[in-house]
Formats: sequence, structure tokens, C-alpha cells
Amino acid sequence: MTQTAHATNHSDDATRAKRQDFYDRLAPKNLAPLWEVLKGLMPPEPTSKAVPHQWRYEEVRPLLMESGDLLTAEEAERRVLVLENPAFPGESRATATIYAGLQLIMPGETAPAHRHTPSALRFMLEGEGAFTAVGGERTTMRAGDFVITPNWAFHDHGNEGSGPCAWLDGLDIPMVRFFETVFSEGYNDKSQSLTRPEGDALARFGSRMLPLDDSGRRYGQTTPIFNYPYERTREALVAAAKGEAPDPHLATTLRYANPVDGGWTMPTMSAWMTHVEKGFETKRMRSTDGIVLCVAEGRGQITTGDKTFSYAPRDVIVLPAWAWRSFKAEEDSFLFCISDRVAQEKLGFFREERG
Amino acid sequence: MTQTAHATNHSDDATRAKRQDFYDRLAPKNLAPLWEVLKGLMPPEPTSKAVPHQWRYEEVRPLLMESGDLLTAEEAERRVLVLENPAFPGESRATATIYAGLQLIMPGETAPAHRHTPSALRFMLEGEGAFTAVGGERTTMRAGDFVITPNWAFHDHGNEGSGPCAWLDGLDIPMVRFFETVFSEGYNDKSQSLTRPEGDALARFGSRMLPLDDSGRRYGQTTPIFNYPYERTREALVAAAKGEAPDPHLATTLRYANPVDGGWTMPTMSAWMTHVEKGFETKRMRSTDGIVLCVAEGRGQITTGDKTFSYAPRDVIVLPAWAWRSFKAEEDSFLFCISDRVAQEKLGFFREERG
Amino acid sequence: MTQTAHATNHSDDATRAKRQDFYDRLAPKNLAPLWEVLKGLMPPEPTSKAVPHQWRYEEVRPLLMESGDLLTAEEAERRVLVLENPAFPGESRATATIYAGLQLIMPGETAPAHRHTPSALRFMLEGEGAFTAVGGERTTMRAGDFVITPNWAFHDHGNEGSGPCAWLDGLDIPMVRFFETVFSEGYNDKSQSLTRPEGDALARFGSRMLPLDDSGRRYGQTTPIFNYPYERTREALVAAAKGEAPDPHLATTLRYANPVDGGWTMPTMSAWMTHVEKGFETKRMRSTDGIVLCVAEGRGQITTGDKTFSYAPRDVIVLPAWAWRSFKAEEDSFLFCISDRVAQEKLGFFREERG
Amino acid sequence: MTQTAHATNHSDDATRAKRQDFYDRLAPKNLAPLWEVLKGLMPPEPTSKAVPHQWRYEEVRPLLMESGDLLTAEEAERRVLVLENPAFPGESRATATIYAGLQLIMPGETAPAHRHTPSALRFMLEGEGAFTAVGGERTTMRAGDFVITPNWAFHDHGNEGSGPCAWLDGLDIPMVRFFETVFSEGYNDKSQSLTRPEGDALARFGSRMLPLDDSGRRYGQTTPIFNYPYERTREALVAAAKGEAPDPHLATTLRYANPVDGGWTMPTMSAWMTHVEKGFETKRMRSTDGIVLCVAEGRGQITTGDKTFSYAPRDVIVLPAWAWRSFKAEEDSFLFCISDRVAQEKLGFFREERG
Repeated sequence: MTQTAHATNHSDDATRAKRQDFYDRLAPKNLAPLWEVLKGLMPPEPTSKAVPHQWRYEEVRPLLMESGDLLTAEEAERRVLVLENPAFPGESRATATIYAGLQLIMPGETAPAHRHTPSALRFMLEGEGAFTAVGGERTTMRAGDFVITPNWAFHDHGNEGSGPCAWLDGLDIPMVRFFETVFSEGYNDKSQSLTRPEGDALARFGSRMLPLDDSGRRYGQTTPIFNYPYERTREALVAAAKGEAPDPHLATTLRYANPVDGGWTMPTMSAWMTHVEKGFETKRMRSTDGIVLCVAEGRGQITTGDKTFSYAPRDVIVLPAWAWRSFKAEEDSFLFCISDRVAQEKLGFFREERG
Repeated sequence: MTQTAHATNHSDDATRAKRQDFYDRLAPKNLAPLWEVLKGLMPPEPTSKAVPHQWRYEEVRPLLMESGDLLTAEEAERRVLVLENPAFPGESRATATIYAGLQLIMPGETAPAHRHTPSALRFMLEGEGAFTAVGGERTTMRAGDFVITPNWAFHDHGNEGSGPCAWLDGLDIPMVRFFETVFSEGYNDKSQSLTRPEGDALARFGSRMLPLDDSGRRYGQTTPIFNYPYERTREALVAAAKGEAPDPHLATTLRYANPVDGGWTMPTMSAWMTHVEKGFETKRMRSTDGIVLCVAEGRGQITTGDKTFSYAPRDVIVLPAWAWRSFKAEEDSFLFCISDRVAQEKLGFFREERG
Repeated sequence: MTQTAHATNHSDDATRAKRQDFYDRLAPKNLAPLWEVLKGLMPPEPTSKAVPHQWRYEEVRPLLMESGDLLTAEEAERRVLVLENPAFPGESRATATIYAGLQLIMPGETAPAHRHTPSALRFMLEGEGAFTAVGGERTTMRAGDFVITPNWAFHDHGNEGSGPCAWLDGLDIPMVRFFETVFSEGYNDKSQSLTRPEGDALARFGSRMLPLDDSGRRYGQTTPIFNYPYERTREALVAAAKGEAPDPHLATTLRYANPVDGGWTMPTMSAWMTHVEKGFETKRMRSTDGIVLCVAEGRGQITTGDKTFSYAPRDVIVLPAWAWRSFKAEEDSFLFCISDRVAQEKLGFFREERG
Repeated sequence: MTQTAHATNHSDDATRAKRQDFYDRLAPKNLAPLWEVLKGLMPPEPTSKAVPHQWRYEEVRPLLMESGDLLTAEEAERRVLVLENPAFPGESRATATIYAGLQLIMPGETAPAHRHTPSALRFMLEGEGAFTAVGGERTTMRAGDFVITPNWAFHDHGNEGSGPCAWLDGLDIPMVRFFETVFSEGYNDKSQSLTRPEGDALARFGSRMLPLDDSGRRYGQTTPIFNYPYERTREALVAAAKGEAPDPHLATTLRYANPVDGGWTMPTMSAWMTHVEKGFETKRMRSTDGIVLCVAEGRGQITTGDKTFSYAPRDVIVLPAWAWRSFKAEEDSFLFCISDRVAQEKLGFFREERG
């Protein structure tokens, strides 16, 4: 692609013509003049392409339920409504780097077993009787549970309850695609064989103990715990709020942790929960990671950039990277958040600023 | 110290005399001939100086209780009966590298606040109402709880119950003394000020979550959780025993873990619990770490080297380093174990052999 | 963006119409049906968008030198011809994730001091007298030297010689842009102040020793050594080739290492050098990281996918991700390679296959 | 061992008698009253048992050479004069935790191949033609070279020169013995087979590069480089002294580093070299690690505690733990130091104070 000569110091038509001639000879050799594009390539500060957006659960739920009649989970492979950031239509991106969707599974259905290099997390929203199977073990999904299906681990979902079950999916698909490392394959059966009783991983790895061997590394860098039940998380946040005054910017925040190394639970996506007590308002802060937030409980306002959203339970909100954000709780709130922070930290990109 | 010339290849009196003359001239210069001592310095295999030993709780308890009448906790600073390995009389050593003792605190007493570079762990044996305070927080000690007072953290104990409370102490005192790094100091009051509600550390660090900051490193390499309640540990072991067949050598074993990095809880002493189901007998194994074992629950036999002990709840048994050991449970058993394994692993010394 | 309903199992016109109606109601709510795009989002294997390509130095050098007359380094800020992969015209990308360019600096010029979050590496090609300054220290750039300007460190270049100096630039700009974390700023002067003598970093960090403090972490995750002279690297490879038979796939390969932690030198780009002795031909292998390769010395062939290139000194070749590659040396060859491997390893994406 | 009842608060004969009776009943049960020994067990500050000491090379050399006539290296297995701290006669200890000795090998001799769990380091003092073999590779030992024979690696020494060769040995034997983990065995031949050319390890691991595989971990936690030549170290220190003003306490100090992880070279002993320029005097400091220091070059004074030694090349000096130390150089000096610092850091014991 030929670059167009632009004005620079002391330029005039002759200079521009001379340069254009030069550029025209560069293009066929797949060369381009950096000085024409440098300022565009490297701006002084990032401006996230993603825009703030809110999906109100009360608005999207009817559409989600309607998809339950439209096709089966086996037909769909995954019956999901993708949450597309208005800035990335057709690209299956909620933020620049994270995919999000709402998945529905009806009673008796199976979302067939498969695996892929993208990592996935699930934040349970409603319904009784849904399960996810990973590593030969099932976990029952209850509202507010944070469930993980690691990179390249076979996983399937089912619903043994009597009503529809729905959850929020978060995947690092945009990252894996950017790095051109997507692999995927189906399992040789609809559901994986179960080889461990339910609760085994939590007993073995999530009880403040660990085995003597390195079975905790069964999923590489991903935590061996594949369900972080809401009950325990909520209890911890309530107690933490009692023990320490809320941080002015973070309120009371705890991050989900990998017991094997204390790190984030997944190698590409960070997950944490922020508890804001009724009446508390955080001071603004911003960070280079764009956030997908889901309201586990509570009502209030979330401000991101120049947008303020009133939130209610199960709403999903995108807070773009590097936009000033703050929260204000009208009721005791529990806000589940994911972002690419862990990827940024590892690559040396992460920044944060407190206002 | 002058070395004595010994026979070596082809030696005779003349050689020996010549060498002895040489040695006599070395000694005043604080030199010694290695070749006379090398084989002793470096044997082919270790032979632990410590011997197997058992303290039956039913035998030592009366003496422990009697010490309750003998002096107050404040007089004693710590009212403890030291468990001395018969091989190290007067040296306050249970194994070559670990100190152990039984501590008693009577209703209303305080073991005054102090701190020291040796790390300490407590395994609760009996009584209601005892507490340990660390980092401005109290923790109530219930039977089977594993409590930690980190290297250089102020700690005090109290008993707000109506009866005597007793626990097993384990400290790395022999290690700290060997390295000549013992420091100690008293607090400026009998008890430390309480700045956090009970349960704060467990909520903040022991609920599968972690704070965003590095407060989990408040005690350096030692875990920020200073009580691992038995209830959770026992439950995890029972579930783990259901999920996987017992290991032939380890039965069902989980180690206490530091949530901040997945490592052992303390930098010098490893702690774990082995659950042996009724009727199960482990195959023998040996390792270079000498173990101090305390029976939380159950009855059976423990073989170490050529000794076999019948154990009952609260018994304390020393299993010397590099001796073949095996367990046989007559009743469902839960065996709390500590050793210097983590120190050995870090220093590159640890070995294990399975029979 | 409205999704188009496609044929699925048992579909027919009525089904498709019903679905299309549903999709038309999803779009205004920024929702999309995953089942219509899942297979495209997650293919079974990656197909790199980048194509194999070679820039022969003898062809591009004249154009590079011509740019020396076209404008000054200060005008350009950086006088660089960007190496654009034919698959990404106008995007300043050599592979999907790496930027590469050829930079020229004329005698007496300065490429002014600036800094930016993208990390940069330089592989020196020709000329005497060029230098790069980082951290208040200059390093002279000789052919084959691997020079690093870390993420957010001020850097400037100059040429104190009598002739043109040229090098290959590699930057992680595509990655930093993807994560929306580009920051940049100029220095308050054309060149940074020099506070350390030349060679200080190599003495302090690159001589098998390290300081007692953590000054080695002055650039975060990036190595404190900012020039890996070719002389030492070449010598190491020649000796390594004598000590061990060449690996069938890697020939004799060593990677540049961070002395502070043994890791790759930079957090986003891996760099290594492969020495292939005259007459040796590697067996094919492929990996998920796309490579930008520059020939330091030698002649031979490089096969990537279905393309085979004959290489000569200073040629730059792109080997796309997941394409089978192999090398055949006609003369003793030294091949400098960079890729996003370290980023992929940290994010859990990296795969390799040996044929 | 029965404890003697001592006076405590408000004690009197009746109390003492009552306590003594109690202690007499404790002893047969291998119990002891902690309160009688606590203050001795845990003093407020450490007092190193080791004393400052100097072995002047000009005094000990004649004795070392005399041992060359006394017996052969094969007879001795290792012909070494152990440097015994006057505080530990007969214990083969230079400091509380480190063994040191002077080894002599005569032309044509072999110190036969063996291995043992204690790690060893060698600091070459005089002679040409000595070598150490580790991992199938020989390294020639020149004055000031720092050579390592890792824990459990077979090693042998030889002298292919025409004159006697001598070096300083440092081993962690006291530590390994304390932890009861000494294993040793001979090789099945006098010398190990050579499988790599001399210089291979330095090329592969010591040239700022590393292999792609993990062969750098061939000796576990110990560096894969088994000779740190003095030439490179000296050059680095001279350059570092030019680049930065000497630290008031450390002068110009660099530590030997493991290229695989940037850590200390060995898991139990730290090694570093301090360069003090002529006329410079350091401010005093103290640390919990006792140091064995060997003068590579220079003359001056070393003060440790209340002792001041005048040093000359090849002198060995013990600086006990926690004693204030300082150096004053009359000539440009290079001081090789070893201590148990790395072990202390890992175990959480290390402290340092600057005066």
C-alpha cells in the first residue's frame, strides 16, 4: 500500500513530489516510510476503541429465553447470545480483547463436550440444576458461582433441573485469535466420562491444603479449582468489609486466586469481585484493562468515562480501558469483574491511576 | 585439637610417627588433616542421631496439668513441657532440627506477648476458650486446629474459657540456633492490641480469594493465614479419600498451603495431615526429614525403623530421618505431621524412597 | 450488525425466516447469535494470515540509503523503512504480532530521545560509529549486536562515524496496540544525559555476576543488559556446536537471556540465534509463533510452508506461525530470530511440533 | 536429663523443692520444663560462637606443601588442611555453618572421583595445570577462579602441570550434617569420563545466552557454570568501580550469579567478590551470616568485631556472624567471600545492619 507524502518541516511541493516518487518505489517491495505513520502508530495515550455499554438483564432475558425455543443446545453447540460492543459490530468482542456472551441451557439439554485453546469463564446468573464438567468432574452451578473451563480442557454443560439455566460467558477469544493460536476439537462423545465425585477439586485444592504432588498443575497455569462458589466469596467480602475500612477506590475487593501459586486464576483473564456497601461511593480511578462487569447483587450507579449507568442484578456493563470509573451503591452491591489485566501485567503493559 | 595419625595404606610406625609430628605442628595453627576425618565427616548414608519415641498423652497429661498448679503462665512466660528426644537430653530437641513441647494455659491466664526469630506452630489438643493473637487479630483454638505464629511476629495466648487448654508446640529453634540467628524481644504490654476482628485473615486470604495488594506477604514467606481450622482440613481429607484411592505410601495426605504462593505455610517447617482409613496399611517409605507426629484422631500402629508404636488420640511420636516408616489404622485416623522438609527442599537436601 | 441465518440441521425456509426475524431483533440490542459464527471464531487449527516473505538486503539497501537523502533523522524522528507483510498492507506488521523495519542513521545525526510502551530491539547490520543510549549509558553498535530499548525507557540513537549505519528494528507495536496500552512521550532534549560510562551495564550485569541490590530490575521484566555483542554470541555458538551434535531441528541454537532471572530478554518478544554449519540441513518443525529472521552471516535456503528462499547476509525473512520450517546451510550460517514466543508462553498459547 | 529448679519470682525453698520434685518426675518421661531454659534458648541477640581468625598464607603454605610429601592425593582421597575455627576444635568448622580447607594437588596426581550431598566450592590460589572435572567436562583452574562442584555431582581433580597447585575449599558440610542428610559415594573409576570439551558449560550457559531446553537445571538449584574465571570477574569489578561511586559499606561488590535464574550460584553458600580501591575505607556493617574471606589481591586491614587483621594475598580470614566489619585497602584489593547467606535468606533468618 503506497503511503501518501505529507507535509513536514520545510516541505513544499517539490519535496512532497520527490517523496511520493520514493514511496511509489517502496510499495512494490513491501516497504513503507515509518515517518508518515509514526505518530498514528504511537499516540501519547491510549484511546480505547471500545465504548461504554450496558445490557440490562431485564431487557435481554426475554431474547435469551426465546433462543431456547429457536434451536437446541446440540444444534447450536453453544446456545449463546454474544454481547457485542457497539464499537466492534460483527467481531464478537465486548472489549478490545475479551469476548462475552449469555448462554442458555434448557432442562435435559447437553452443550456437547469440546475443547479449544481459548480459556472460558462462566458467571452463573439464574436457574437450578445446571452443571459444567471438566477433568472428569461435574460442578453444580449456582447463582454467583464463578466457573472456569481451562485452555484445552474438555468441557461440557448440562441441565438436570426443571427450568432454564443461564450464565455469562467470558472468553479470551480475541487474544487467542490475535496471536493466531486457536485450536479446537470435539470430544468423542456428547459428555465426558465422570471419574471424580463432585466437590473433589474443591476438597483437594480449595480447602487451604494442597496435595504433595503437582496435580495442582493439571491445567498448566490455570487454577485446578474450577468452581469458586458465590457463597464462600460473598462471605469473605462481607467479613473483609468488617475488618478494614473500604479502600476509597476499590471499596472492598478480593480477586479470585489460584491456590497453587497465589496468582490470578487464569493466564489471560483476571477475575475479581467488588463489594460496595449501601451508600458508599468510590473515588474515580482508571486502568489500561477494559472490564466486563456483571452485577451479582445490588443496585446503584456505575460511571465510566462520561457515561453513567444505573445497574440492577445480572446487568452486564463494559467499562472501556483507560476511562475513569467509579461506583455508587444504592443497595449493598456485589460486582463481578473480568478483564485482561493478568495478560497486561505479564506483558509489561498494565497501568493504573487513582484520582 | 591435634588429630591422631591412623593407619592408612601401607602405613607403618615410621609413617605414623612422621604424620603425628606433622599433625602436632598443625594444631597450633588451627589446621587439621582432612584425610584423618573425611570418612567420618561424610558417611555413605545418614544415620539419624534422633531415636524413635512416643509420648502417650494419657501418661503426660497428668504431668502437664500438674504444671498448671506449679507456676503461672506469666511466671513461666511459656508454661511448656519440652518433648526431649532421648538422644538429645537437655538440648530441647525432638528431632535433630525441630523443637516440640506441650503448652498449657489455665483459665484467665495470659502467655505474654513476645516475638522471636524462630517460627512456631501450635496443634490444638484440648480445651475450649484458648486463643492466639497475631497481627492484631485473635484466633480461637479448637481441637485439631493448626495455628502459626510467624518468625518475628508478636504473639500472645490467652484462655477465656473455664478449663485448662493444651496444645502441641513445634518450633525451628534448633535450626535458628544452628545458624546463629536467634533474636527475641518482649512486647510493651502483656497482650497486643487487637486491630482486626476474629476471622479477618481467613476471610481475606483463606477463602480462595486474595487482596489486590501484597498484604498477603505481611509475614514474609509465612502464610498470612494463622489458623487452619481442623473442621475444614478434616472435611477436605474425607472428601479426598472418596475421590481417589489412597496412595499406597501416603494414604490420603494433604499439606497445609500458603495461599499467596502455594508453598508450604512456613519457611522452615512443613506441616501436613495424613488420613488413614480404618483397616488401611501403608507401604513403607523413608525420607531425610525427621517427623514429629501428633494424632488428631484414631488408633492404630506406627512403625519407624525397628520400633512399632500403638497410637491413640493426642499421642506425639518422633519418626527419625531416613528410617522406614509405615502406618496401620485400626480406626479412621487423622495424623498431623511436621518436619524440616521445606528447609531441606530449599537447601537441596531432601530425598525420599518408597518401599 | 445483523447476523444472517444459515442452514443448520433440519433447517428449512420457515426455520431460517424465524431465525432471521430473531436476529433482526437482536442486533439493535448489540446481541448476536454465537451459533452462526462459532466455527469461524474457533477453527480446528490456526492459519496464519501472514505470508512468507523475503526482503533481500541487496535490493532494499539502495532504497534505504536513498532515504538518507530524502529527509533528516530529526525530521523523521525515526528514519525507517517499515517491512510490511504483504498480507497486512498499511498496517505496519511483519507478522501478525510483530513490527519490523530497517533504520538508517547518517553521520552526525541524532534520532531524538523519546520513550513509549512498545519494547524495541535492534539488530545491527552495517556501519561503524552508531550508538544507542538507554538509562544514561551509550552502547556502540557493531554488526550482529543485539540491542534493546526497553518498554518506557528513554532512548536515542546517534552516528559518530563517517558513514551510514543501518539496523533492523523489531517492536511489539501490534501487541501493544491490540491491548490498547500505547503511551509515548518525547524527552526534554534531543539526547539523554549520559550518567554511566560505556560498558557499565555489561560489566555490572553481563559478566556472570550481579549486584547485591535489585538494580537489575531497573527496566522491570526487561534485561538490564541492553547490548548483547555479536562477538560473544558467535563465539558461544561456535563452541556449543563443538560440544554437542547439532539438534536435528534446531541445529545449534542459543537464546538471549536475562541474567536477572534466566528468562527471555524482553517480556513480549523472544530473541535467539541459530548457527547452522555448512552442509547441515534441519528437519522440519513448526510452532505457533511467527518469526522474523535476519541473516547475520552465511548463505543457504530457508523453507517456510511451501516457499523456499535462498538467503544471503542481512536478508530479512518472515516465517509465518504454524508453517513447517527448515534450514539448509550452504555456508556456515548465523541466523538471528525474533518472535512473540515469550508472550505466547506466558499466555499459555505456545505449541511446537517437530517433524 | 533432669532440669534444676531455679529461682523465679517470689520463689523460696519450698517452691524450689516442689519444682525439683516435679522435674525429677519429668525426666524419665523425656520431658523438661521450658521455663527453666527459655531465656537461654532464645537470647535477645545472637552471639556467634565462632571467633575472628586469620590464616596467613605465608605461614600455612609451608605446612601445606609439606603435606605434599607426607602422603599422596589418592591415599588421602583429598589432601586438605582443614581450617578450624579456634572456637570449634575438632569439628571441621570455619564458621558455625561452613567448612573450609586448603587443598594441595601435586603434579601428576588425581584426587579420585566421588560425589556427596555437601556442595563444594574452590577458590584457586596458586599453580598452573590443575583441573576439576564435573559433568564430563574439565575446567582448568587459574588463580582467582571460582570453581563449583555441585551437590551430588561426581567430581575429580588433577594436576597436569609441573608444580604444586593449591586452592581454598568451602563446603556446607556442617549444614548437611546438621540436617542429617549426608550421602556420599565413590565413582567406579579414578577419574570421570570426559564427554564435553573444556569451555562447553561457559559457552552454553555463561555467554549471556541459554539453551532452549532446561539443561541449565542439570545440577538442580546449582548453577550450570562450574568455573567463574577470575579474569572476567576482575574486569567486571574494575569497570563497575568506574561506573559508580563505591558503596560506603560494600565498596564495589558483585555476587556470582546463576544464569538460569539470577540467584546465588549454590543453594547453601553465597559467594561474592568485593573490590576495594587503594585508600578506600568502608563504613562498618554487620550481618547474620558468618563469612570466610580469601584475599585474591591486595593488602590492607579487615576489622571484625574487636579484631583487626592486616591482610595479604591468599590469606583466609573468618568474620563471625553479627560482628561489625569494615575494610581498609592499602593497595587495590579483591576479596573473595563466602557465607551461608543464601541459606539464611531462604529460611527467613537473614538480617543486615549498616553503621
